[in-house]
Amino acid sequence: MKRKLLLVSNSTLHGGGGYLDHCQQQISHFFGKDVKKVLFIPYALHDRDNYTKTARDKFKTLGYEVESIHEASDPVEAVRKAEGIFIGGGNTFRLLKSLYDNKVVTEIQRRVMEDGVPYMGSSAGTNVATISISTTNDMPIVCPPSFNAIGLVPFNINPHYLDPDPNSRHMGETREQRITQYHEEPNTPSVLGLREGSMLLVEGNKATLLGTTKARLFSRGKPSVEYEPGSDLSFLLSDAHRPIK
Amino acid sequence: MKRKLLLVSNSTLHGGGGYLDHCQQQISHFFGKDVKKVLFIPYALHDRDNYTKTARDKFKTLGYEVESIHEASDPVEAVRKAEGIFIGGGNTFRLLKSLYDNKVVTEIQRRVMEDGVPYMGSSAGTNVATISISTTNDMPIVCPPSFNAIGLVPFNINPHYLDPDPNSRHMGETREQRITQYHEEPNTPSVLGLREGSMLLVEGNKATLLGTTKARLFSRGKPSVEYEPGSDLSFLLSDAHRPIK
Repeated sequence: MKRKLLLVSNSTLHGGGGYLDHCQQQISHFFGKDVKKVLFIPYALHDRDNYTKTARDKFKTLGYEVESIHEASDPVEAVRKAEGIFIGGGNTFRLLKSLYDNKVVTEIQRRVMEDGVPYMGSSAGTNVATISISTTNDMPIVCPPSFNAIGLVPFNINPHYLDPDPNSRHMGETREQRITQYHEEPNTPSVLGLREGSMLLVEGNKATLLGTTKARLFSRGKPSVEYEPGSDLSFLLSDAHRPIK
Repeated sequence: MKRKLLLVSNSTLHGGGGYLDHCQQQISHFFGKDVKKVLFIPYALHDRDNYTKTARDKFKTLGYEVESIHEASDPVEAVRKAEGIFIGGGNTFRLLKSLYDNKVVTEIQRRVMEDGVPYMGSSAGTNVATISISTTNDMPIVCPPSFNAIGLVPFNINPHYLDPDPNSRHMGETREQRITQYHEEPNTPSVLGLREGSMLLVEGNKATLLGTTKARLFSRGKPSVEYEPGSDLSFLLSDAHRPIK
């Protein structure tokens, strides 16, 4: 298994500087010196040109060239040739629908799982790397053909995980209540709640929590568990955590 | 047009007492003296028995009997016979999927629009009364066959509408940003943001904002507008506000 993933909770951190500043060291270490050009997938935002400029400017400071899939004449061919892939955040439904519309879901999966092309996702780009988008926080502004995602890991992630605010007067469900509702459904996988500032590094069958904040793991029928940055979460990659179909 | 709707933002209001207490006067006035028994649809929550007990106990204090659709041998027949309908809140995706699975979407629409059966919705039950569930706040824990909803009004509603918190350190999108993303998509209808404490009363082609809080209207390509309780929002019911297919 050559899989190499960097799954980031959020693109911009409060008090942590500009776009991707809070995880730039991890990005440099992740793509390393062998990757020269990263294929950027801007499908989660409406203004793809502007989004590409933001990503291109940031990656340039780290020494990487950025090619955007929306500028390629053949998106599938662009994935086939990619040295590294980065899917940015935005609306998860819009992103997944565009991935299906452009027929790149299977090709991304093949390149990452078989060819070992490094995959970085942020926010919505992290959601679509998992089994399904069923634990996104986003509004369902468009309807993708399925909630099944690229499936690079056998569990789900909730990016921007948020603890309940004890002072809130708002009566909408807390994030934990929403994930609990998900686990009321049969055969649902574990959900890793990545707080802003945290990210998951996956190298083959090894998974490590990076960043500055803790993560909370929710598994069906079990109490939730907190993990400190640096924790080994490789157990999440085993088939035992894959939901029964 | 016999349509009669009471679309409530939220079932429980902070500091406003127990379940449906904050809108009980409006409920009594809405169902009136002719309706004796209300058909309750508890599909948005996992524990339907418990949810039905909660609704039954509350409606009993207002003088109405409650029959739950999940206790009926034939859900479509239960809708066909209903004197009044109440769809409660919970998860909007779960609710809409169950409405489709039980084949009651068209029958509810027919009973309300043609027979004038009064329809009350709260939170998720308000979402499914509109054109689509594309402006729900809920997590997509299950995948309905479509995001198209019952379509009793030609626009969308965002229940539990929430103003941005200026002190927040959280970097997820604000509610307004999410609705703006929806309006980046072509042919999207107006979205009425109903703050907790507010509700919309629709009688034929007349719509009135009720409750204690203001509502915010978002229309594609226009600045958003605030409306005070008591405002006449009948203009939202005209075909001019229906999105072009």
